[in-house]
Amino acid sequence: MEIQIEAIFAVGTALFAVTAIYFFWAYKKPFNSAFLVSFITIISYILMLEGSLVSVGAGGGEVYATRWLFYGLSCSLLMYEIARFLKKSQSETVFLMVLTVLVMGIGAASAYFQGWYKIGFFVLSSLAYIILIYPLLTSVSPHRSAVAKYLLLGWTGFPLAFLLAPDGFGIITAVTAAILYLLLDIFTKMIFYFDLHRKMEASIA
Amino acid sequence: MEIQIEAIFAVGTALFAVTAIYFFWAYKKPFNSAFLVSFITIISYILMLEGSLVSVGAGGGEVYATRWLFYGLSCSLLMYEIARFLKKSQSETVFLMVLTVLVMGIGAASAYFQGWYKIGFFVLSSLAYIILIYPLLTSVSPHRSAVAKYLLLGWTGFPLAFLLAPDGFGIITAVTAAILYLLLDIFTKMIFYFDLHRKMEASIA
Amino acid sequence: MEIQIEAIFAVGTALFAVTAIYFFWAYKKPFNSAFLVSFITIISYILMLEGSLVSVGAGGGEVYATRWLFYGLSCSLLMYEIARFLKKSQSETVFLMVLTVLVMGIGAASAYFQGWYKIGFFVLSSLAYIILIYPLLTSVSPHRSAVAKYLLLGWTGFPLAFLLAPDGFGIITAVTAAILYLLLDIFTKMIFYFDLHRKMEASIA
Repeated sequence: MEIQIEAIFAVGTALFAVTAIYFFWAYKKPFNSAFLVSFITIISYILMLEGSLVSVGAGGGEVYATRWLFYGLSCSLLMYEIARFLKKSQSETVFLMVLTVLVMGIGAASAYFQGWYKIGFFVLSSLAYIILIYPLLTSVSPHRSAVAKYLLLGWTGFPLAFLLAPDGFGIITAVTAAILYLLLDIFTKMIFYFDLHRKMEASIA
Repeated sequence: MEIQIEAIFAVGTALFAVTAIYFFWAYKKPFNSAFLVSFITIISYILMLEGSLVSVGAGGGEVYATRWLFYGLSCSLLMYEIARFLKKSQSETVFLMVLTVLVMGIGAASAYFQGWYKIGFFVLSSLAYIILIYPLLTSVSPHRSAVAKYLLLGWTGFPLAFLLAPDGFGIITAVTAAILYLLLDIFTKMIFYFDLHRKMEASIA
Repeated sequence: MEIQIEAIFAVGTALFAVTAIYFFWAYKKPFNSAFLVSFITIISYILMLEGSLVSVGAGGGEVYATRWLFYGLSCSLLMYEIARFLKKSQSETVFLMVLTVLVMGIGAASAYFQGWYKIGFFVLSSLAYIILIYPLLTSVSPHRSAVAKYLLLGWTGFPLAFLLAPDGFGIITAVTAAILYLLLDIFTKMIFYFDLHRKMEASIA
């Protein structure tokens, strides 16, 4: 039996709908980024399910460049939470959020364009990503290692999946890539909050 | 005599040009959202007047999805003013502004897409809207009822007009919808400031 | 010998790659806008080099409307730095940043559209620009004249080049315009920081 990419996007939509509802009711707080990140991810999955904004990538596989634009929005909110958790100053927090938008926006360009431009944008996006996570991984904070796990095993998985997917070299199919991205989404946008929410609340309060 | 939709957009452009000038000269203050909201609305109306970004909606009527993208910008600035008026914290203010962008951005998607996707995006945008206005309507603030009037009679009119318009089910024509939207724009973006500007200044100062 | 527009964009990409690296290593600080501005400008130049988002302007010359969208991002970060340098309040800083986004976004619309709409958007963008720089030029700050030089001789050069370019009336070719814009980019986004970085650090600290 062949898995259809629409089925994966439907599962993603359903899972993030459940966590959006859960985070909304469970985490009553003034800036509920857990809820916003899940809610934005629902929109991103529905747009991929709809399918009219798809383009053709390496190896002829489907590329959903909009995915990266939505990460630009959701992950900059996630970064806001991480920066506050690690007690970054307001100006450094803004710097990290702008960098997150750039990493994802340039990633969308890399997914969309072909040939040398794809490679060039991928290199620039990766450079911005390294500049983004280096100060987080080397923070002087008791919560550094808790966050580092999600950055190194989760966030860093996205550019690796990208390279294998039709977004990059097209070594794996769009379906396999969609499954990988979904697992990474679950790890970085669901499990992250289930694991760290209490610690973050205690740290920020 | 038949009213042409271009005439309504021209009237909207002219009215908001007048209020942009008035708010600019009358309200001297560091963050003049009244001026910005009117100025952004001018751009939105000129773009609809120009007409090349139109799409076809329910019942064959014209849909101007860009309208909702510009509301995402103008109404998030309006929300910044409302949040400060109701003495919301900085982190809750950011939360309310992000939600406003989501309500309007998802609304643009609902206007643009058809069938089940239109309905799905409309439901999601409405949910985000309820999450947005509930904490405002239940605020413990002496200014709650002053703001509630504009939210309940003004802001809530937009999704109702949307449902009737070609953006939604296409029960009314694009011309009738444009008139309704213009009246709601006048209520929420002009009369709102004329009515509450002094109170807001006194409250924020 | 005829200069090709791709050569100019390639030179712009290379120059801003050099300054992005330099500003990154030389200016260690929490909000490094010098680096971000150069980095965003690299992306803008690569996108113009790629060429698929070009449109046809006055006199049949090439128009790169994306240039103005990227200025919306880079120049609002530059404005954040200028506003802090001149000791503007947080709410006025946000106002100036929103205005910068509007100036550039409406500029992109003026570059893209034709005829009366081009003229109308140009007038609106210029009005927003005057409202933006007037409070900066008349600030009560010891750093006013240092900033005014870059605004009056640099920033103001952009709308003048715009009018001459295919973005505006098409009096000069797209190649000549690209050279003018590059010189203005060097003045306002490189020399500006080389000249004022130390003063800004001393002022903000």
